[in-house]
Amino acid sequence: MDDHHDAGPEPMLERLIFFSDAVFAIAITLLTIEIGVPHLRRSAGVSEHLAALAQRLPNFIGFLVSFAVIAAFWNGHHRAFGLARSYAPGVKAPNFQLLCAIAFMPFATAYMSENFGAVVPTFTYCLLLLVTGLLNVRLIRLVTSAPYVSPTAPVDEVAVVRLRGWGVVLGAAVGLAMSLIQPALAQMMLGTIPGWIWLLQRSVRPAVSKVSGG
Amino acid sequence: MDDHHDAGPEPMLERLIFFSDAVFAIAITLLTIEIGVPHLRRSAGVSEHLAALAQRLPNFIGFLVSFAVIAAFWNGHHRAFGLARSYAPGVKAPNFQLLCAIAFMPFATAYMSENFGAVVPTFTYCLLLLVTGLLNVRLIRLVTSAPYVSPTAPVDEVAVVRLRGWGVVLGAAVGLAMSLIQPALAQMMLGTIPGWIWLLQRSVRPAVSKVSGG
Amino acid sequence: MDDHHDAGPEPMLERLIFFSDAVFAIAITLLTIEIGVPHLRRSAGVSEHLAALAQRLPNFIGFLVSFAVIAAFWNGHHRAFGLARSYAPGVKAPNFQLLCAIAFMPFATAYMSENFGAVVPTFTYCLLLLVTGLLNVRLIRLVTSAPYVSPTAPVDEVAVVRLRGWGVVLGAAVGLAMSLIQPALAQMMLGTIPGWIWLLQRSVRPAVSKVSGG
Amino acid sequence: MDDHHDAGPEPMLERLIFFSDAVFAIAITLLTIEIGVPHLRRSAGVSEHLAALAQRLPNFIGFLVSFAVIAAFWNGHHRAFGLARSYAPGVKAPNFQLLCAIAFMPFATAYMSENFGAVVPTFTYCLLLLVTGLLNVRLIRLVTSAPYVSPTAPVDEVAVVRLRGWGVVLGAAVGLAMSLIQPALAQMMLGTIPGWIWLLQRSVRPAVSKVSGG
Repeated sequence: MDDHHDAGPEPMLERLIFFSDAVFAIAITLLTIEIGVPHLRRSAGVSEHLAALAQRLPNFIGFLVSFAVIAAFWNGHHRAFGLARSYAPGVKAPNFQLLCAIAFMPFATAYMSENFGAVVPTFTYCLLLLVTGLLNVRLIRLVTSAPYVSPTAPVDEVAVVRLRGWGVVLGAAVGLAMSLIQPALAQMMLGTIPGWIWLLQRSVRPAVSKVSGG
Repeated sequence: MDDHHDAGPEPMLERLIFFSDAVFAIAITLLTIEIGVPHLRRSAGVSEHLAALAQRLPNFIGFLVSFAVIAAFWNGHHRAFGLARSYAPGVKAPNFQLLCAIAFMPFATAYMSENFGAVVPTFTYCLLLLVTGLLNVRLIRLVTSAPYVSPTAPVDEVAVVRLRGWGVVLGAAVGLAMSLIQPALAQMMLGTIPGWIWLLQRSVRPAVSKVSGG
Repeated sequence: MDDHHDAGPEPMLERLIFFSDAVFAIAITLLTIEIGVPHLRRSAGVSEHLAALAQRLPNFIGFLVSFAVIAAFWNGHHRAFGLARSYAPGVKAPNFQLLCAIAFMPFATAYMSENFGAVVPTFTYCLLLLVTGLLNVRLIRLVTSAPYVSPTAPVDEVAVVRLRGWGVVLGAAVGLAMSLIQPALAQMMLGTIPGWIWLLQRSVRPAVSKVSGG
Repeated sequence: MDDHHDAGPEPMLERLIFFSDAVFAIAITLLTIEIGVPHLRRSAGVSEHLAALAQRLPNFIGFLVSFAVIAAFWNGHHRAFGLARSYAPGVKAPNFQLLCAIAFMPFATAYMSENFGAVVPTFTYCLLLLVTGLLNVRLIRLVTSAPYVSPTAPVDEVAVVRLRGWGVVLGAAVGLAMSLIQPALAQMMLGTIPGWIWLLQRSVRPAVSKVSGG
């Protein structure tokens, strides 16, 4: 890692990062709370238990997808703020808006999982994801600009971090469209997010390596 | 940002700030837990789902308002402790009193949202907000005084941070009065909080800028 | 504050403190989760709402008492670890045992509050408090000894921090005895904890001030 | 402690550790949430209360076992990352995979406890533990290798930390086998974990002490 990684963010920024981490961590861990725990009668056999678990399959998938999504948002937050050094009050509002959307994820996940295949819950979930993605793109753009960004932050890393943020937006948009056509497949569309990120990152890397090579 | 921002708080104060952040973060993220997730039968159509969401509208508004309110309190805490450097045991009790009120917010929010338009729940919520606001004002005054405050903290910033704290108190007082007249509109009154903060901040800024200009 | 406060704990100890703080913060904020939110029918009047709140009075008192108790334990943890500098693996087990008891507080609180005045729940709560108090005393003794404690930690402060820990133990013991006689008054006995702490602290202070004066 | 303990991890790694701690702390504290609080009628006597508690015995044991298990995973994480200094993005995915398994522990614990003695829930729990253990072994191996590990990390400590991770895997494997034969005894098998850790640690220590003695 580069030199600029060794100096941490200033205290006021560090506390904001810390607070954000706590919200991310709570939201990601609360995801399982909404999965109802199956309570079968004592005499229930293996097949009954497997049936009860199978019935909750949408909840398990919903948990995994939302875990991956929140992890992706944390990832972007971690990368973007890793390039920031200075604090200014202007970062608070956009950061809180992102956190508000993240805090709403457990509800949206449970709503979609409990009503698997229904249009409205799936559309709501994908819409929330799209909004969160846009709030995320805006926040990342902000903290990788003056006065927040480290003066020694490599230009190519800033470009990559900003572009990557669009991956979730694109995936959520595809999911949103699919939720109107075939809701049961919408979550699968979110699986394209890593692909989008890879494509976006690739589009900037060649140009970037030339710059850093120059 | 000024020089005094670069030195962080001493370890004992930092831990207190950290602990407070965790409580703020948990309270703000737990707000959604109390919103019951609609579970409709498989054959439910779009209109039924929209009706179920519409029925939870007070819960969604309650979530957003309380999220904004807790964010405002965190904001004040962040600004005030950003000016503090030294630790003394006397900060613990007032800080815990504020955190106790914050920890109670999810309950008060759910109580008001579940009984939208009722006098007692709305009054309770606004009263809690008023009390929290006063505890907040007292804590901010304390940590922006000796022995906590940084000797290099700008006088004008101290004045602004202290005055801003009254914004929530004023908004909550208006909401409290409205809860007795027209409970359904009380939450809307809380929307005046940013206005109060702006007015208060403006009242001190001109004098302040002359001072810093002098 | 003394010089030894300025140097923070070493990283491995800092992470342990951080993790403990998170557990304390979650346990203290989860206390409200178990208070059932009253949901009355739309036409319910003021008196019905007040009755519903009055019925939950034990839950509110339970919340406040447990909040104060967990705050007291955090306080002791904060003071004791504030005197510590070095890390050794031996601190983990006693720290986890204390955290395990703290994590159980929301359950014990809800159990007592939901069955206000019953012997078993009240006894269970006070017993948990007594055990937590003893685990706390042991942990505090450990971290204010070598190899954990700062070589520059003032002898009198170590003595005070250790003695204060017995305050919760004494209060919990009185509460435990009362839970067998008159359970409804047991929680009130816990209100003697600050008194015990004050008495214990006073017993060491005179000797101590002579030492530091000498 | 050795010199290499005094320098903390670099900021990007520190934030990742911090975030992980928050997830560990929330998962470990949420364990009690799923234990239903007994609510008996006012006239219920001591014997009825004791019966209600006895009925929840599997839940209490499940809480204690899972608390110990998550504590063991945190312990391994703490030790392994205590030897790490540098950050690279490659640590994120394996760390998130471990955290995902940890976040699922409260659900798996409640599922097993609510259906005590049933094959499927017990098998599911032990399987989750086995998978978590393997993810943990992989993560520990990663962060105790270049480029993460401190260049001054003692070779013997790296060896011990890596070996210890297999303790949970072995215990979980025994529990998994037992869950198919006698589910009610499977949790007891997890009690062998400290024994496995001790054995594994012992197998490496003699060689190690010769090295450090040489």
